[in-house]
Amino acid sequence: MAIAVCLISGGLDSCVAAAEAHEVGHTLAFLHVSYGQRTERREKEAFRALCDFYRVSHQLVVKIDYFRKIGGSALTDPNIALPGGDLDRMDVPLSYVPFRNANLLSIATSWAEILKGNFIYIGAVEEDSSGYPDCRAVFFDRFNDVIREGTRPETRIEIVTPLIRMRKVEIVQRGIELGAPLELTWSCYQDNDVACGRCDSCLLRLRGFREAGASDPLPYRSL
Amino acid sequence: MAIAVCLISGGLDSCVAAAEAHEVGHTLAFLHVSYGQRTERREKEAFRALCDFYRVSHQLVVKIDYFRKIGGSALTDPNIALPGGDLDRMDVPLSYVPFRNANLLSIATSWAEILKGNFIYIGAVEEDSSGYPDCRAVFFDRFNDVIREGTRPETRIEIVTPLIRMRKVEIVQRGIELGAPLELTWSCYQDNDVACGRCDSCLLRLRGFREAGASDPLPYRSL
Repeated sequence: MAIAVCLISGGLDSCVAAAEAHEVGHTLAFLHVSYGQRTERREKEAFRALCDFYRVSHQLVVKIDYFRKIGGSALTDPNIALPGGDLDRMDVPLSYVPFRNANLLSIATSWAEILKGNFIYIGAVEEDSSGYPDCRAVFFDRFNDVIREGTRPETRIEIVTPLIRMRKVEIVQRGIELGAPLELTWSCYQDNDVACGRCDSCLLRLRGFREAGASDPLPYRSL
Repeated sequence: MAIAVCLISGGLDSCVAAAEAHEVGHTLAFLHVSYGQRTERREKEAFRALCDFYRVSHQLVVKIDYFRKIGGSALTDPNIALPGGDLDRMDVPLSYVPFRNANLLSIATSWAEILKGNFIYIGAVEEDSSGYPDCRAVFFDRFNDVIREGTRPETRIEIVTPLIRMRKVEIVQRGIELGAPLELTWSCYQDNDVACGRCDSCLLRLRGFREAGASDPLPYRSL
């Protein structure tokens, strides 16, 4: 059995991506990175719950503080208001954390190389919730090239992005199909206790469930 | 003037690479990453001294703990003995920290994007002190591709590796030529107070000075 390192934010997408790795029969290694995002406490709870659900033996929680020091993103800087209410915007959103996914994938690759893992699963989505340059398929292709050149000659690690071409409604449907514990996940960018229902991330999630004809198991402050 | 983020370990190579950025006239931004290496205290001192020497206004010190958690390298795991005394070995050394340079470059890129910097200087050397997969020119070429795809459309950041094809003796010579403060640097992998003179890094440095016909300003425990 191959080991798959799964990047688990605790959100819906990472949960469904991990469910895909589980479906294939990989041995799961769950990695959570706290990088100073507003909802890191709640996300870590979701991570622990997902580890329990999938009985994950390899678990790693990493805390990095430099995104807060660097600043520049509404996700890590409380002085920048989170955008909300406009899912049709085309430019890079204020919640963009500079080059975040390269940082996460580098940590995942370092761990995977020590575990002798062959796969890194990440729940990135290009089509729907996008505008982030580091969520596009071409970015992951190029990162695979870097992994090939930057690790030991015998190391074979490949990034897998099972959701990259899906819309949120398809992710919800696929999650339900795979029996993924969507009730354990957390998507809100704004709050730690009750989801706000207004930030981009809540709006996308709610629209996904609505279009799938399913009801979101999470409570929301405003709907 | 363009801003150059310089990855400053505190060692000889990073000092000379920064001296090249200074020579070009770039505005310097010095980044030091403590990742649990044995000599992190002494390296950070060297970093501060180099910041003072070059009167660097943009300074960032980042501490990451996950390499120690992940393990697997003699540089970060006190239970793995550091190799020493064999500079002609061809395989990947025990001091290899898995995919380290991708982690460092990701941090540097995130910071450079916020600073609106255009260059990242790193003192990597392929020829001489090598065996590390993530010190080869092809690795940096591929990482430049990732930066292009993974940052904002308007961001222009390029990794510069001025030493990549040099031997240690040439680095020493070039450092002296540029007036780089080599006496402020620290290369030993083993100790924090007096350089051991026996680890690979000390041996390489000493050979470099010897071949350059110069004397190393640092004291050594054993020669």
